[in-house]
Amino acid sequence: MVFKRKPTARFRERIAMRIVRFAKDGREGFGLVQGDDAIAVRWEADGFDAAAFLKALGEGASGLAAFAAELGKGSALRLDEVSLCTPVPLTGKILCLGANFGEHASEAHFEHSQHPAVFMRTRDSFVAPGESLLKPKLSNDFDFEGELAVVVGRGGRHIALDRALDHVAGYTICQEGSIRDYQLNAPQWTLGKNFYRSGSLGPAFVAAEGLPPGGKGLRLVTRLNGAVVQDASLSEMLIDVASAVSFISGVMLLEPGDVIAMGTCAGVGLFRKPPLFMKAGDICEIEIEGLGILRNDVVDEA
Amino acid sequence: MVFKRKPTARFRERIAMRIVRFAKDGREGFGLVQGDDAIAVRWEADGFDAAAFLKALGEGASGLAAFAAELGKGSALRLDEVSLCTPVPLTGKILCLGANFGEHASEAHFEHSQHPAVFMRTRDSFVAPGESLLKPKLSNDFDFEGELAVVVGRGGRHIALDRALDHVAGYTICQEGSIRDYQLNAPQWTLGKNFYRSGSLGPAFVAAEGLPPGGKGLRLVTRLNGAVVQDASLSEMLIDVASAVSFISGVMLLEPGDVIAMGTCAGVGLFRKPPLFMKAGDICEIEIEGLGILRNDVVDEA
Repeated sequence: MVFKRKPTARFRERIAMRIVRFAKDGREGFGLVQGDDAIAVRWEADGFDAAAFLKALGEGASGLAAFAAELGKGSALRLDEVSLCTPVPLTGKILCLGANFGEHASEAHFEHSQHPAVFMRTRDSFVAPGESLLKPKLSNDFDFEGELAVVVGRGGRHIALDRALDHVAGYTICQEGSIRDYQLNAPQWTLGKNFYRSGSLGPAFVAAEGLPPGGKGLRLVTRLNGAVVQDASLSEMLIDVASAVSFISGVMLLEPGDVIAMGTCAGVGLFRKPPLFMKAGDICEIEIEGLGILRNDVVDEA
Repeated sequence: MVFKRKPTARFRERIAMRIVRFAKDGREGFGLVQGDDAIAVRWEADGFDAAAFLKALGEGASGLAAFAAELGKGSALRLDEVSLCTPVPLTGKILCLGANFGEHASEAHFEHSQHPAVFMRTRDSFVAPGESLLKPKLSNDFDFEGELAVVVGRGGRHIALDRALDHVAGYTICQEGSIRDYQLNAPQWTLGKNFYRSGSLGPAFVAAEGLPPGGKGLRLVTRLNGAVVQDASLSEMLIDVASAVSFISGVMLLEPGDVIAMGTCAGVGLFRKPPLFMKAGDICEIEIEGLGILRNDVVDEA
């Protein structure tokens, strides 16, 4: 299961709140994860819908705690009885930082500039945890990218650096799947980062208060068919979570439920010799300490 | 008014359908433009909401004609009695092509690549027709970009080039306002293209059937404080509307109401000597033959 690995000792006590969004028998709902396999669920039809979750995110820690407490009163299901959805409904902005780990920037021969490299992804470029990623018809250069994803809580503009983490409700994991030839055949990466159903997000929303500030020190491991292909500490991020939130809020209005994917670490398939791309039948897992495992298989686009 | 200039003779007969979205006295609605100043309106509360318009767009020309016919039965208002909204609700993708006019690509010393330069904008980066654009606190390099905007009708993927225009419901005008230092201080243009309320879209959705295929031959003129700063034919686009729709649909799922801004022509402020940027008090008008005039003033961000 997505949480089968025990949290390390230093986080076991602190992980307070993991929320999943799911579908079951044609209905949707939110659930509070209560152990490796158990969730307490409430249903969309009873008001536990995307809007209610976004509202709770926007209210900060207290709103989120109240939302989770309500979920906790729900009926019990097992995680394997439901189909997970992306934990955040993805109706808002999905921003991505590029070349934000030193070793990855080096393997990419990336020249750093005054401002961070930021691009966006569409909602449709993501599948749910456990769903199949699509290897496009038009390319074989389908690469994995394991990333920390920030979920914005209270929104705002011109958020000061020293208050930026107050605007982070929590985190999840992003498979920022990338089609390398389309990414590199144009000066803007947007096309290669937005193939239909080429990425994934999940498995759960994990409240920030259960984790070290900005995710610092958490370990990220990506496995392709069981073999470790990326292994890094989130302390290696060049622009940390607080800096990203503060900087981006100078440009855009950040809103509850907006997502900021923080960039991937070294080890992507493109820079391996020979390159290692994903193909039908592959299984890619991204694990971040405390956030669970985001697992997707790959199928060919029909 | 936004349609005060008469259509040229060759389009006067053919312009069948111009639809605006508007707010009045705290209510929203859609209206069918019936002359320079008159609209026939129906209200959101009566089912003429964004979802109904998107559904009509997705049904192709017949769905759109039925939607317009219903609007035509509504009560009469004058355009100057309502506040226009962006004609498309901007709940979907907003894609933009860069460097898509030869002379502009030349002035920008843009090196063409195998694929077009595509980036995205957020909904929040746009204001309505007639609303004030925000000159950001963080930059003085606020540039104008007049563009044709394609509104997707029937959605799809892998749309064949020779059927691509069947998926274009209509057009509007885009002020693709750009913050040049942020655009150029990073390898990705996204930040400079997404400052809060730096762009605009409107004034009306104009059905494709009233215009030449792909907008070819229409004239685009941008005026800053009355002085012409851009003046080009849409025939100068390097990647035409059909090609853009077909190409992008190979990457992404196109959906009703998605917007594709086709790129700007020569004359932007950045490449003038000295550069000419927008500042508080300025008025920028973009006119495209048959599509009306998109007019916004500029104020300083508070």
